[in-house]
Amino acid sequence: MYALALHGGAGPRPSAWSVALERRYRDALAQALGVGHELLARGQSALDAVTATVAALEDDPLFNAGRGAVLTSAGTAELDAAVMDGASLAAGAVAVIRRARNPVKVARAVMERTTHVLLAGAGADAFAEEIGADLVPSSYFLLSERPVSEEPLPGTVGAVALDGRGCLAAATSTGGMSGQRPGRIGDSPLIGCGTYADDRCAVSTTGHGEWFIRTVQAYDIAARVRYGHSPLSAAIEAAVIQRLPTLGAEGGLIAVDAAGVICMRFNTAQMYRASVREGEEAEIGITATPMP
Amino acid sequence: MYALALHGGAGPRPSAWSVALERRYRDALAQALGVGHELLARGQSALDAVTATVAALEDDPLFNAGRGAVLTSAGTAELDAAVMDGASLAAGAVAVIRRARNPVKVARAVMERTTHVLLAGAGADAFAEEIGADLVPSSYFLLSERPVSEEPLPGTVGAVALDGRGCLAAATSTGGMSGQRPGRIGDSPLIGCGTYADDRCAVSTTGHGEWFIRTVQAYDIAARVRYGHSPLSAAIEAAVIQRLPTLGAEGGLIAVDAAGVICMRFNTAQMYRASVREGEEAEIGITATPMP
Repeated sequence: MYALALHGGAGPRPSAWSVALERRYRDALAQALGVGHELLARGQSALDAVTATVAALEDDPLFNAGRGAVLTSAGTAELDAAVMDGASLAAGAVAVIRRARNPVKVARAVMERTTHVLLAGAGADAFAEEIGADLVPSSYFLLSERPVSEEPLPGTVGAVALDGRGCLAAATSTGGMSGQRPGRIGDSPLIGCGTYADDRCAVSTTGHGEWFIRTVQAYDIAARVRYGHSPLSAAIEAAVIQRLPTLGAEGGLIAVDAAGVICMRFNTAQMYRASVREGEEAEIGITATPMP
Repeated sequence: MYALALHGGAGPRPSAWSVALERRYRDALAQALGVGHELLARGQSALDAVTATVAALEDDPLFNAGRGAVLTSAGTAELDAAVMDGASLAAGAVAVIRRARNPVKVARAVMERTTHVLLAGAGADAFAEEIGADLVPSSYFLLSERPVSEEPLPGTVGAVALDGRGCLAAATSTGGMSGQRPGRIGDSPLIGCGTYADDRCAVSTTGHGEWFIRTVQAYDIAARVRYGHSPLSAAIEAAVIQRLPTLGAEGGLIAVDAAGVICMRFNTAQMYRASVREGEEAEIGITATPMP
């Protein structure tokens, strides 16, 4: 059994919504899901699937990650990403990087080619160059074609997967918050906050990053499962639907457990999302209620 | 009831150990403990106590934080720190900063003066300057007087406290790993990894930072207490003594719970540490067995 889920950000419905825009988002979500799905169907690892899925979302200007990244108050794109392999607890992350086309691939290189987990700023950009990562000029980000660019998207992209060998993985990538102070790091690249995977579940979050740091949200789900013996869905219900709103924390998350159960919950009006399990039809969702 | 504990790093015993050096460390630990103790005795908050205690340790060249910070492979000092208030879950942190004398004070300012939790790199240095933080030239760090500077100290400094109102707080500060790649961020400034506090316990770690990120170590302790209903001491025993060695992760941590119970455990040869509880004598420790 393999399973894959992705998100493209949670938040309010854009005011400029249209049938055509919904179609664009659905196509983009399906396309990115297909990238990871194909790898899992071929027997590749959950780690490969989440990396490739997130890289596809980074390349799409519709999402606040990679090409579609929002800008800081200084007018710069500062990108963050993380990836974690649940079987080994190996993890890699980058924060405040400015030149890599696919931050998630640089995060994976941090995991595989260094003894560190998190590299930030100029040192992370130097690392990206050193390993021959695909570098892009700042105009690559500044020319965002995101159709709702006037709105501050809280969104982020992420993916979680279970592969045929029973291994779990998670990856998350973001352009941060529109107008954020340069140097601000949100939850996405922080292991345990925005991204986490072990042998029981894999989690990727999106939403109010500062609150997801304070609640150590991704690992909080894993801990409710491990120490509280909650089923994954109950753990997520307790955290995302019951607890986070009491803190004023808006957002959502996607998760998969070792049995291939996928949960995608959010306390916002919508969360761009898609999922597929071996032998089943892919599902694409945006609003809370199933779309016709 | 108030309680305060601090650490100054866990690791092997320095090869250049001497009676005179031990005396210096003991005096330094007692002095820093006294700073926070005095605040708690006067009725100030746990947050004030951990900030002041860690700032005192940052000012002492014996420890790998602030003035005594080790250098990166590029010969630069890059400092990280975090602080968290358990009552509100408010948190602030800085990473890869180069100019602040007391990173923990800048971390506290991030918590109190911004909507963010973590600022890194040039943006964090700009923030430190903007708020009028005490800035120092790079020679302040390069002139480290640490007597065992030829050895890569894994250490870090931190403090946890319970104040008279029943509020908990934690703070951690580090110069990172000697010879680390520029831009590397360890567990210390990461909420949930090196530093965490809520209404049940406060935790500060020291040791193998990358593993403490992968295990989300500080929040793992809090989660064992909250979801696993473990007493604090049992949670720490299970994590630090039983689990971490199986991963090859060396280090230790200090913690205090809402009843004022202090736990200081490590799986290394020694951990510089000190603690005091209202109405009791202060205790200073270095090796695993009580010193005469």
